[in-house]
Order: sequence, then C-alpha cells, then structure tokens
Amino acid sequence: MERDQWINRRLHGDGVVELQLGHAPENRLTAEFLNDFEREIREMSADPDVKAVLLTSPFKDFSTGVDQDLADARALAPDLNAAFLALYTFPKPVIIATVGLCSGAGMFFVLASDLRVAHARAGFELIDVQLGREYPVALMEIARATLDANTQRRLMLTGQRLGPIAARNAQIIEVLADDLEDLHGYALKEARKMARLPGQAYAKIKRDLRIDTIERIETRLDDELQPAAHASRLAG
Amino acid sequence: MERDQWINRRLHGDGVVELQLGHAPENRLTAEFLNDFEREIREMSADPDVKAVLLTSPFKDFSTGVDQDLADARALAPDLNAAFLALYTFPKPVIIATVGLCSGAGMFFVLASDLRVAHARAGFELIDVQLGREYPVALMEIARATLDANTQRRLMLTGQRLGPIAARNAQIIEVLADDLEDLHGYALKEARKMARLPGQAYAKIKRDLRIDTIERIETRLDDELQPAAHASRLAG
Amino acid sequence: MERDQWINRRLHGDGVVELQLGHAPENRLTAEFLNDFEREIREMSADPDVKAVLLTSPFKDFSTGVDQDLADARALAPDLNAAFLALYTFPKPVIIATVGLCSGAGMFFVLASDLRVAHARAGFELIDVQLGREYPVALMEIARATLDANTQRRLMLTGQRLGPIAARNAQIIEVLADDLEDLHGYALKEARKMARLPGQAYAKIKRDLRIDTIERIETRLDDELQPAAHASRLAG
Repeated sequence: MERDQWINRRLHGDGVVELQLGHAPENRLTAEFLNDFEREIREMSADPDVKAVLLTSPFKDFSTGVDQDLADARALAPDLNAAFLALYTFPKPVIIATVGLCSGAGMFFVLASDLRVAHARAGFELIDVQLGREYPVALMEIARATLDANTQRRLMLTGQRLGPIAARNAQIIEVLADDLEDLHGYALKEARKMARLPGQAYAKIKRDLRIDTIERIETRLDDELQPAAHASRLAG
Repeated sequence: MERDQWINRRLHGDGVVELQLGHAPENRLTAEFLNDFEREIREMSADPDVKAVLLTSPFKDFSTGVDQDLADARALAPDLNAAFLALYTFPKPVIIATVGLCSGAGMFFVLASDLRVAHARAGFELIDVQLGREYPVALMEIARATLDANTQRRLMLTGQRLGPIAARNAQIIEVLADDLEDLHGYALKEARKMARLPGQAYAKIKRDLRIDTIERIETRLDDELQPAAHASRLAG
Repeated sequence: MERDQWINRRLHGDGVVELQLGHAPENRLTAEFLNDFEREIREMSADPDVKAVLLTSPFKDFSTGVDQDLADARALAPDLNAAFLALYTFPKPVIIATVGLCSGAGMFFVLASDLRVAHARAGFELIDVQLGREYPVALMEIARATLDANTQRRLMLTGQRLGPIAARNAQIIEVLADDLEDLHGYALKEARKMARLPGQAYAKIKRDLRIDTIERIETRLDDELQPAAHASRLAG
C-alpha cells in the first residue's frame, strides 16, 4: 500500500497542513504505518512552507494503538519510538482533532501534540498495564513528561478510560466540540492561529520545554542499542 | 507489643490483602510502628500470593503522623525514610481508604499509594512547616514527585488543611465515599480490580514511573551516611 | 530616579513588609527597575526583621513586562535573570496581590511567589511566543518548574490569556478577591499568617523544593558566560 493511500495531506492555505491518518478501519499502528507517519513528519519538519500541522482521522476512532492480539508487541518498539519521538520533537505547532477512542500507543498522537481538540464523545486510555505490556522507552518518557504524576497513576497503573470531561480536567485536552463539524472547524481555527506565530521563537521555546525529555529518550535508546553495538564490535 | 496487635492482615481472596493499621488511638508514627509496617510491606512484596494491598485504619483518623510534641523529631528520620521508601517502591498495587485526618508524615501513606479513596469528611495536611520541622529525605522527594509544584506550595509552605473536595481537585485522591461503609466497599472493589492486572508489567511500569525519585532518595540517603562512614574509616 | 520613588516599602508590623512596585504607568520592566527590585529583595533576604514580603502594584495592571516595541529584548536578559532568580531563591514567604494584567516577564512576579491572590478581573499571559522572543534562562526554568506541562503548552506555545477562573484552575493563583479592597485585605492576612511560620524550617523546605531548578539556572547561566570568559582569557 502506498503511503498516500493511508496518510493524506490536505493544504488549508497559510502553511496549515492537515495530515489525515487513514489506516482503515481505526488507525491500528503497524510498523509500515508508523514508518510512513514518521517520514511525513520529518519531511514537513524540513519544509519551510509548512507552518502548522493538524492531525485528523476520518474514522470513528482516532487510533486504537497496537493490535491487542499481537503475539510480540515488543517487536514494534523501535517503530513506535521513532515515530513518536519525531512527533514530540517536531519544531512547529501540532494541533490534533481527536474522535472516538485514543487507546494505548494511539494516545501518543495526543500527548505529543501541542494543542488538543476533542469530540464530546471521545475516550482516552492507556491499557498497556491491562495487556501486560511494557512501554517502549520514548512512550514512557513522553507520558512522564506530559501527564502529571496523578494522571500517570490513574491512566497507566489502572488502564481506566477517561471521558472527554475527565480528560479536560486532567488537562489532556483543551477544547471540546459537541459535533464532528465543530471539531474540525475549531481545530482548524487553532491551527491557523498557531501557523501565524513566529517560527523560530516557537521552535526554540518548544525545544527548551522538551529538551530534557528528548535527551533522556535519546540516551536511553542509545543504552538499549549499546550491548548490541558492543557485541558486534567484539564479533568484528 | 507484638506487631500483629497493631498491624492486622485481612485476606479478601484473589490475592487482595487488607493491611489494617491499628496503632491506637490515631496511628501515631513511632520507630517501632514504622519498622513493623516496613517489615510487613517487605514480606508482602516477596510473597507471590499477595496481588494487591489495601491500607485501612479502624480509627477516626487515618494517621496523625509524628507526635507534635516530640522534642527531637529528627531522630525518627531513618525510620520514616525506610518505611515510606518501602511503600513507594512496593511493586504491586497499593490502594488506600482514608478516614478523618492524614497529617504530617501520615500523609505519606496516601502519597505513596497508587489509588486513593477517601471518606467525605477526610482532611489532608502537611504541617511540618508550622512545627518548624524539616522533611526527612525520602518524604521530601516523594512529595516533590507526587504533588504538583502548586500543591507543594499550598500544603508544604503554608501547612493549610485540604478538605476532601480540595484534595480531589488537587488530585491527591480519586474516589470520594459519602459514608464509611461505602468507603471500604469502594476501596475493596478497586483493590480487586487492580489485583487482576498482570503483575510483571505492573511492577515494571510502576518502577519506570518512579525510578528517578527512588534513585534520588537512595543517593541522598547514601550522601547523608557518607560523612559518618568516612569518619568511622578515619577512626578505624 | 531614586529607587524609593518607584519601589516603596510599607511596614505592616510583625515582620510583614509590603513592597509596592511603582514604575508608572504599568510596571514596565527596565534594567534599572529590575536592578533596584533585585537589590530590595536581597536586602530583605538578609534583614532578620523581615519575616514575609507582600508584592503589590498601585496601578491598573500589575506588570506588563518588557516593552513590546523594544528592538533588542535580549539585552535585558541578564537583568531579568538576576531579578527573578533573586525572587525565586528568596528564603522567606512571598505573597503577591495581582491586579489587572500580568504579561510576559511580568508573570514571573507571580510564578516566583509562594502564595498568589488575584483580583477578579486579573489576566495572565506569556506572550513571548507571539512577539518572537526567546525566554531568558532563569525565566524558562522557573516556568518549567512552576507550571505543569499542559499549562506550559497553553501559555507558552500559544500566548493565550487566562482569566482569573482559568488561572485558578491552572493553579497559578489560589485566592480570588471580588474587589480591590478585599484583594489587599486577603493578601495581607495571608502574609501575616505566613510571617508567623518558623523561619529556619520555612527556608529549608522552600529551598529543598526548588534546589534542582536553582542549580540548573546557575549552571546554565555559567555555561552562557563561559565562552565569553574563555575568550577574554585568550585575549588577555
């Protein structure tokens, strides 16, 4: 499948690019989909014509994360780490319009975004603890940096689902839209506003706010690779 | 006094163990009580039959902390550090059902727990600043890790008491129970749910979330011991 | 202009000192004003008769920060860093009574204070991102330490203004006063309460809570000076 089939760019003018995630039927995260998403993000990072990115889904749910029946979810860790680290370090404004469920790794589209708009029937959950799965390094660190300690407990140590009001109270989302048309309209309006912010200062402030977490992820990923690298040196 | 006289285990089946803290009349924290609590926690940590722990008090107040008239509260620091570090690093779910007052060091039963249920007339305060007392290392670090910066200011720099609603807004507790019977019922229900979570993933996620604080506490405790160790080496 | 002309001390008894910031018409931050503020703070830090400080403004707005039309705002960075680091490390209670607008660097009078009272028509904003300005080191670190990650996004990556209720929900302020007379009364009452707290324990607890951020600021400021120092050694 070509990536333009499942990740569509829509240009809204003034540098606002909507990235519609279209991996039917619910944006399950596979290695291929994550890699294509990462490539899109990196391209837009380097493209001076892109001023702000709006993430959307055409489906009932925004993203249900990794297949719950996958035998070895850990095999996906490198792809999850790369995709969400790319989104978290993206130097321009990222606005997300969430619908339906954001579950498991799918939650990190929200957590790595800068401004979050949600439909009034949205749900948010981190169910890895229920599935008996550990978090890939980048996801654990993004969760630690973007959720307060109490929301970490509620979501990550119980797996409970938050509705839109609870999610707003927990500061996971900022704006609620009662119907789907409003959702897109509100999110696009925020994206247009943020596209007008001076790009260089935005990138610097965003990086200053996140640099500790980014460096920590990079260090931990290096540490994970180290034994392998060391072993290959010994072998060579 | 035997510890089974003031710390009672009640088995609720399916690996749920209620630990009833019964140091009459209000769970004052003494060296002996803290040491026995720590020993219980360590035993249950190693016991594969224990899946989740529910902390309760049979008294009007959950715990009023260290005796406010104690001449040298600092002498208790090693016992407080050991007991609450053990609770904070406990690898299984800890649910707490608080009643009445949690004051001073008694607050750390709440702050080190994973899910907190409170009676509708509960109160929460950290009055060390009013008593002119410094925080033992582990307690300071647990407070810094589990309370947001603004709640730290409100509680630790004024000593003000939070009622149940304010405590819920400050995310210190999650569930409120209108009467005492509900309190126990709600807390037990949550404990049963959490006892069913896969143990290994739970322990790993909880540790990943807390590892920075745990390492920091251990380093600071080592540093505190260092001068003494150094002096004894010189003496020897 | 003499500093007693734009920074007035009013003694309220029992060690409570009101520091009225009077740089007409809206407490714009200039190098001279910041330096005088810093000197006042340092003097009161060393003065055993000062038990608590109350920050007030006689104007419609508390402080509108750095002149938005200033060509080179970066030239003010050393003065902003010095003034707000002094306030953030001040070892005694600081209470603030905010009126009207706190904007840009003016927000750091609030963020570095220990207890914040606001008038019911107060507004709070960090508009540097809109002006295309980066944060001086101390201000970035104080913001990171005192605002949660989500409030950082809302304020620092959009520049939106928070009204008094939103600011209270975001835990930027604790107490709201409906009219200006109440504002001063409430703030003074809190200041009197905090002036009675044991000074040594207060200083130790406040420092323990903030030491990481303080050390981080000092390290980053040293790093910034390092190249210059290095260059001057080479030149000499």
